[in-house]
Amino acid sequence: MSITGEMLIGRQAVRGNEAALRAFNPATGAEIAEPVFGGGSAAHVGTACDLAQQAFDPYRRLPLTVRAEFLERIADGITSLGDALIERAQLESGLPKARLEGERGRTTGQLKLFAQVVRAGQWLAATLDSPLPERKPLPRSDLRMQKIALGPVAVFGASNFPLAFSVAGGDTAAALAAGCPVVVKAHPAHLGTSEMVGRVIQQVAQGMDLPEGVFSMIVGAGNAVGEALVAHPAIKAVGFTGSRAGGLSLMRIAAARAEPIPVYAEMSSVNPVFLLPEALAQRGDAIARGFVDSLVLGAGQFCTNPGLAIAVDSDALKGFVATASQALGGKPAQTMLTGGIHSAYEKGEDKLAATAGVETVARGLDATGPTQARAALFVTDAQTFLATPTLEDEVFGPVSTIVRCNDEREMLAVAEHFAGQLTATLQMDSADLAIAQKLLPVLERKAGRILVNGFPTGVEVSHAMVHGGPFPATSDSRATSVGTTSIERFLRPVCYQDFPADLLPAALADSNPLDLWRHRDGEITRS
Amino acid sequence: MSITGEMLIGRQAVRGNEAALRAFNPATGAEIAEPVFGGGSAAHVGTACDLAQQAFDPYRRLPLTVRAEFLERIADGITSLGDALIERAQLESGLPKARLEGERGRTTGQLKLFAQVVRAGQWLAATLDSPLPERKPLPRSDLRMQKIALGPVAVFGASNFPLAFSVAGGDTAAALAAGCPVVVKAHPAHLGTSEMVGRVIQQVAQGMDLPEGVFSMIVGAGNAVGEALVAHPAIKAVGFTGSRAGGLSLMRIAAARAEPIPVYAEMSSVNPVFLLPEALAQRGDAIARGFVDSLVLGAGQFCTNPGLAIAVDSDALKGFVATASQALGGKPAQTMLTGGIHSAYEKGEDKLAATAGVETVARGLDATGPTQARAALFVTDAQTFLATPTLEDEVFGPVSTIVRCNDEREMLAVAEHFAGQLTATLQMDSADLAIAQKLLPVLERKAGRILVNGFPTGVEVSHAMVHGGPFPATSDSRATSVGTTSIERFLRPVCYQDFPADLLPAALADSNPLDLWRHRDGEITRS
Repeated sequence: MSITGEMLIGRQAVRGNEAALRAFNPATGAEIAEPVFGGGSAAHVGTACDLAQQAFDPYRRLPLTVRAEFLERIADGITSLGDALIERAQLESGLPKARLEGERGRTTGQLKLFAQVVRAGQWLAATLDSPLPERKPLPRSDLRMQKIALGPVAVFGASNFPLAFSVAGGDTAAALAAGCPVVVKAHPAHLGTSEMVGRVIQQVAQGMDLPEGVFSMIVGAGNAVGEALVAHPAIKAVGFTGSRAGGLSLMRIAAARAEPIPVYAEMSSVNPVFLLPEALAQRGDAIARGFVDSLVLGAGQFCTNPGLAIAVDSDALKGFVATASQALGGKPAQTMLTGGIHSAYEKGEDKLAATAGVETVARGLDATGPTQARAALFVTDAQTFLATPTLEDEVFGPVSTIVRCNDEREMLAVAEHFAGQLTATLQMDSADLAIAQKLLPVLERKAGRILVNGFPTGVEVSHAMVHGGPFPATSDSRATSVGTTSIERFLRPVCYQDFPADLLPAALADSNPLDLWRHRDGEITRS
Repeated sequence: MSITGEMLIGRQAVRGNEAALRAFNPATGAEIAEPVFGGGSAAHVGTACDLAQQAFDPYRRLPLTVRAEFLERIADGITSLGDALIERAQLESGLPKARLEGERGRTTGQLKLFAQVVRAGQWLAATLDSPLPERKPLPRSDLRMQKIALGPVAVFGASNFPLAFSVAGGDTAAALAAGCPVVVKAHPAHLGTSEMVGRVIQQVAQGMDLPEGVFSMIVGAGNAVGEALVAHPAIKAVGFTGSRAGGLSLMRIAAARAEPIPVYAEMSSVNPVFLLPEALAQRGDAIARGFVDSLVLGAGQFCTNPGLAIAVDSDALKGFVATASQALGGKPAQTMLTGGIHSAYEKGEDKLAATAGVETVARGLDATGPTQARAALFVTDAQTFLATPTLEDEVFGPVSTIVRCNDEREMLAVAEHFAGQLTATLQMDSADLAIAQKLLPVLERKAGRILVNGFPTGVEVSHAMVHGGPFPATSDSRATSVGTTSIERFLRPVCYQDFPADLLPAALADSNPLDLWRHRDGEITRS
């Protein structure tokens, strides 16, 4: 598949006529000369959104088996791109080949899991209340409810997962599974990768003769195209993974529309790790090495990167800091995704190092390339942490701060101090249960996922996963952007009252033709 | 129970020291002299919200049986107020006694239904993914998910349901059921009724020794108190039923907070009724009489009042208009809830009557009291309707406009033209199935509930009910404010990864001690 630099609008490949973009290679810092990607205009956005609007009813009303097949064929198409896709993604992201192969597996696995979810149909939440014609003073009607798709969805690809959170990533898979057409704004950090994957979706949609407009992909320099996308009346929800500033900007645009719409923005998190006393005493060295491995994974460019560790001061903590420092000191610098991310990292790391009350205890090996990040480890005390709001800001990259507390009470105060997080972690042994039980209600309020004796990097795509959390981790703590329940972001309930059988949706028919588990008069039944 | 004019903040009764309010009697237009209600300040709001914050963890972690008992005892306490409550509500609202008795039954029934919902625990959405320790390349963790309460909720009572959508109404019941403390802003149109019900909740909470702050009720003249409530950092969600301007104002405040929060505002809807040709031909007169009865019910002061009827022109439609006009012409004027609602109604009705292309075909009987509304019926044609956006604005009261279409195509264009609605109705016979099938996908996009051969007034409190819909019917089409699934508005998911058994929430324990239907590895099971 050749990369042309065109956008994909419905069944067309369209060359943008606004400011051009070029892909670039973060390992060398050099632009990739060919092809040039033409930037889209508000008119292109309008065409894509109008097509999405026209596709909405026919697409959402297709048999669920067709929708599932669409997702599976996209997965197969991505696999069929073979090494060419991995090589292009490697070139554009600087990520290692094995990591990208793993990410491709995650991407195709996610699409196939959503195909299963679509077929199983539990997301329809089919609910039936039987009529009570004899009830006094008034009879009760026949009431049936199912969830339907929200409408066309705008998806913003993430820089740090060029496959799994991008053009055919989690947001797209969940939206298409829900019955929503998707308009993707391709991330400028992996334009060629985006086009390759986008063309797969376009070809599959055309090959299956799906409604034109079920998928489009727009490219643009700057923010204008993305802003026009979120502002377009046809768009009914937004999926975004990126910076806090970017997410907040989209939230503002969505809230200012004539019809405000939901924005699911996954933004920033420092993912605190609580090192409880007995765990530190029993296996502090092992935890320190695991912590550093999690911290430097993928050059620290994970949303769930552990940016803070919190512990009560002790000899065991001193040992932990020593072991972690030694481990981190041997970690090679790694190429970051973009020059912008790299310079933000350098700035953030410098700011941490210069913060009063913050001690630099270790640095990784020096950089050997233009956008490489050197890991760093800092230590501060709880009073400094509580008094310095910037210490809670996410620094995207391989950096973490250890917060030393005087006692358990101070550790609880630090936990209570946090804003919303994607994750919080407890490193604990059975003798730590009492303090863990005190921390748990606080952490439940603060985080979408709480881990025991693991590290937060590594987000499983499964039914029970929550990749979400209170603001500012995300814009909407009611949702997850990873896992099968992420489909719920793009659904809304509709009630059908006293419908004749021949007008009822299949999910709500008496005979249960879709073989769903349904809520009937308050009971869960498959009959 | 005596009404003192105090606010209820935690376990205290507190006299507000800001601008005072008096209850009033809409039937006479006169203020009720005693007691005076002291208006609250931002400081009162702060105290109530701080107490709610402190109550949050202890309240949400009580056994579900205690939470359920709380709701049941509130219901019993309301019943125990006996006629005194009905008389006060009648005095303050002008609503007939039978209507208020029915509404009281709805309110207590709703609380008891939510008690059942709390005990059944399906809202926990307990989900378990088994660990896969042997999986390659990486093992899978033990992942378990449940939903927990969002945090303290601000509830704004509605003017038109002084019991069922007010202090102990649907929003409060759903929030308390979810595990959220509630701070109510009492509606100035029924201050005494609010205090009576608020004192019941306060006494029950104290009698059960629930955490102080699980419930408070604030009073205020003007918007300042409500605005301070929505802006308070402890508040994590807002429930509101009222005007579009009021809802939009709360949405703006919520979006502008340092931590934006969800607002569930149920605002405005004209609830179109489609009169399909065969139904009109077969039983136009009966539909006309039912339509007018629905239209004037409760002086038209229902969110689901049918404000528009749409039909293809025919002799049958002429007959419908004649019968509806005759029926409406005999309807007595009715006292409206407040002077403000009455004057807005008069203004809205006058504006409709004066709109070019709109013909007044019937008026109800003349008013005999100061705030009585006289019903009105108008007719226009589809082209006028499509060209006149104000014809789609809700006029709160007993008024409706019949839109005459030239053909089916024009009827579809009118349907497509609508903004979001709480309801849409099809009056149809079997011979109308083809046009109903064309309308259905459009109406699914436009409304939260679609009725066949009924009238939209009358909202059942059940499992399958959706009282919601796309903007501007509500601020969030993903939610319903009536029915058991309204609890979902106040919940968010949390994932527990690799938790030891003694730290796991009961809903997720291996032994399933709460006897829940749970999602386990993608299957639904109770084992």
